[in-house]
Amino acid sequence: MKIEIPRYIEVFGAAQINEVQRVYELDSGVTSEVPAENVGTVRDIGKDVMNDIEQRMAIVVSTKNEKLRLLDGVMSGIPHDCLIIVVSNSTRKPIDRYKNEMELVKQFNKFVQRKVIMIHQRDPGLAKALREVGYTDILQGRYVRNGKGEGALVGLVLAKLAKKDYVGFVDADNFIPGAVHEYVKNFNSGFSMASSPYSMVRISWLYKPTVIETGFYFSRWGRINEYTNKYLNRLISSHSGFGTEIIKTGNSGEYAMSMKLAELLAFSSGSSVDPYTMLNLLEAFGPSNPINNKEVREKGVQIYQIETRNPHIHVDKGDEHLANMLLSSIGIIYHSRICSDALRKVMIDELIASGLIKKGVTPPNPPTMRPTKNLNFKTLQEFLEINAKTLVTMGEASTQNQAPS
Amino acid sequence: MKIEIPRYIEVFGAAQINEVQRVYELDSGVTSEVPAENVGTVRDIGKDVMNDIEQRMAIVVSTKNEKLRLLDGVMSGIPHDCLIIVVSNSTRKPIDRYKNEMELVKQFNKFVQRKVIMIHQRDPGLAKALREVGYTDILQGRYVRNGKGEGALVGLVLAKLAKKDYVGFVDADNFIPGAVHEYVKNFNSGFSMASSPYSMVRISWLYKPTVIETGFYFSRWGRINEYTNKYLNRLISSHSGFGTEIIKTGNSGEYAMSMKLAELLAFSSGSSVDPYTMLNLLEAFGPSNPINNKEVREKGVQIYQIETRNPHIHVDKGDEHLANMLLSSIGIIYHSRICSDALRKVMIDELIASGLIKKGVTPPNPPTMRPTKNLNFKTLQEFLEINAKTLVTMGEASTQNQAPS
Repeated sequence: MKIEIPRYIEVFGAAQINEVQRVYELDSGVTSEVPAENVGTVRDIGKDVMNDIEQRMAIVVSTKNEKLRLLDGVMSGIPHDCLIIVVSNSTRKPIDRYKNEMELVKQFNKFVQRKVIMIHQRDPGLAKALREVGYTDILQGRYVRNGKGEGALVGLVLAKLAKKDYVGFVDADNFIPGAVHEYVKNFNSGFSMASSPYSMVRISWLYKPTVIETGFYFSRWGRINEYTNKYLNRLISSHSGFGTEIIKTGNSGEYAMSMKLAELLAFSSGSSVDPYTMLNLLEAFGPSNPINNKEVREKGVQIYQIETRNPHIHVDKGDEHLANMLLSSIGIIYHSRICSDALRKVMIDELIASGLIKKGVTPPNPPTMRPTKNLNFKTLQEFLEINAKTLVTMGEASTQNQAPS
Repeated sequence: MKIEIPRYIEVFGAAQINEVQRVYELDSGVTSEVPAENVGTVRDIGKDVMNDIEQRMAIVVSTKNEKLRLLDGVMSGIPHDCLIIVVSNSTRKPIDRYKNEMELVKQFNKFVQRKVIMIHQRDPGLAKALREVGYTDILQGRYVRNGKGEGALVGLVLAKLAKKDYVGFVDADNFIPGAVHEYVKNFNSGFSMASSPYSMVRISWLYKPTVIETGFYFSRWGRINEYTNKYLNRLISSHSGFGTEIIKTGNSGEYAMSMKLAELLAFSSGSSVDPYTMLNLLEAFGPSNPINNKEVREKGVQIYQIETRNPHIHVDKGDEHLANMLLSSIGIIYHSRICSDALRKVMIDELIASGLIKKGVTPPNPPTMRPTKNLNFKTLQEFLEINAKTLVTMGEASTQNQAPS
């Protein structure tokens, strides 16, 4: 892959946020060289580097009642050497969709023989194992809560058990396997550029409303992203005193982290998880917070934002879904401890003026879940192995990586 | 790439047509192994093999007034090591779109430094050079004729001058760079499976009318393809005596050939070129034709059809364009010397019954252009270098590959 080197970096405490980077070539081959005059502009990431990162990476695929064909396509796009972790929250009655997903994955894997871990988010055995290690943050009664953030966190925990160094998140509702393939390569490009072991890569979608006739959807999506980015940028400005537009990926649902960073971050519930991975990073490593971790203080946390070459074409979940996504994204910023009262007032005024919320309504405050670093993973694994009936491991995932089996 | 091995092969004289093959994984990494029980089912094509073929391959990108952004995207999807040959037939007045394309490509290439050759199809110097070597088949007065087939043939000639062993064709009107990337990998997969130096790989699109709301277009396209495939298959049946559905890629606009095969084939004018590359192969190497080339007789000609994982989303050229495409595709089969009178009658009856042509109308008979094998390429190159004012070479295309400069 050949990619632009970011020209501008915004520093916010220990966090270094890189400007959006453009992809020049999806595949830079083997004969490629970056000439001297472009060394400061272009980075060529070779296949060896990519392959090395892929072997150390888990890709968490969240799915909820998506068409099996889409899940199949997404898996075909993820480079073979990555561990795939499917976290499903599909309905199990009257039709057991999770069973169908398992059969699809098994059938697919008969031919590709890759490492796959699958689990159902509402498996009571999963909840039991998490309760056993005291991680009740994610629970609601006998189950893990419904929600995208909860699913992502389950995926993160499984990636940690599989001893992966990187974890990436992609949704199963993606029509373009080539786009999924590019996301993973973009993740790898970011990690290969990082000098700190604490790094995050977020995908900036190249969405083009005029491309296809579903323009309506794209522009709505753009609107949510616009607000989230604006408010995340104002959070930074309110501390630095300088306006910034550095954050362009507030609502990106496709991002990856080094495990060292991922386990230091809190996650939030539902669809607010996407902006919250960014927000919590600013909260935890921003200028107003004491940072206890010496390595983080010294090496910093690096965030890369990479603009895909492929458009993002996915299932239209409808207006209500989008409205919820907007409100929870705004809400998680509104209620952040690093959000000033002045910014809160601006947010409310703007959202009322644009008709996005009603007067007198306070944006929701989605629950958050503590960082997972200090969980007792050994105990968690033992309990998972015994109790989680929906847990499936394929390929050599169970043995080579010591994942639960 | 991990790909299904075709289970069924139809033999037609020296031609071996393989059943459509499915792609399992776009990227099979480096740790992948095909277990013993799948050796007969799955082929894993490693990056080394791919890289080797890419360095010997030219990809011809045909463009005609496409948005620059699309051309940019298509180039970003073609693996770096392939030579890109852009054959443009864009309008030059009142705005010189070719000039804009050249500027775009130069700008793009500043950062990626790849090998690119560009030419305008209506360059009088190009026509002059082709006339000089007696290849008047492609000319109309002072110019190369307008038409997709003519553009493809110009690309083939330039690929031959650049001493490439493989030549592939893709259109610039493709919204998914990842799909273009996959096409090239599919081409390479096919060539890596071929045991004969005479081979062709055709892309079978995974088009799904329900995927996006432009279903109408997709189904129309499906209809053209359905007729073309049906009649190509009947040509085969009428010789073998057995019904077949082996050909699924009659109208594929994305295909590649080994140079040894490409220079033995005639091309046809306009959009009939896509089915004609298949048809002419059946004409030239079918059972009713004496084959003079000893190597072809001994090794055969192998055709692979590979179903993409990515959907094909491109510019809707409108109904008239599609009607012309249908008629010229049908016409080129109708007028083929291997088409029997009985099949001609069936074709006409069916097309009238389905309202696709009017009674009493004979389908058009697009002009064809002789195989290029025996052209004097040395003279052609000399004349091109002197006369073709629109010819541009970038990167090391001109020196390392002895392409015209």
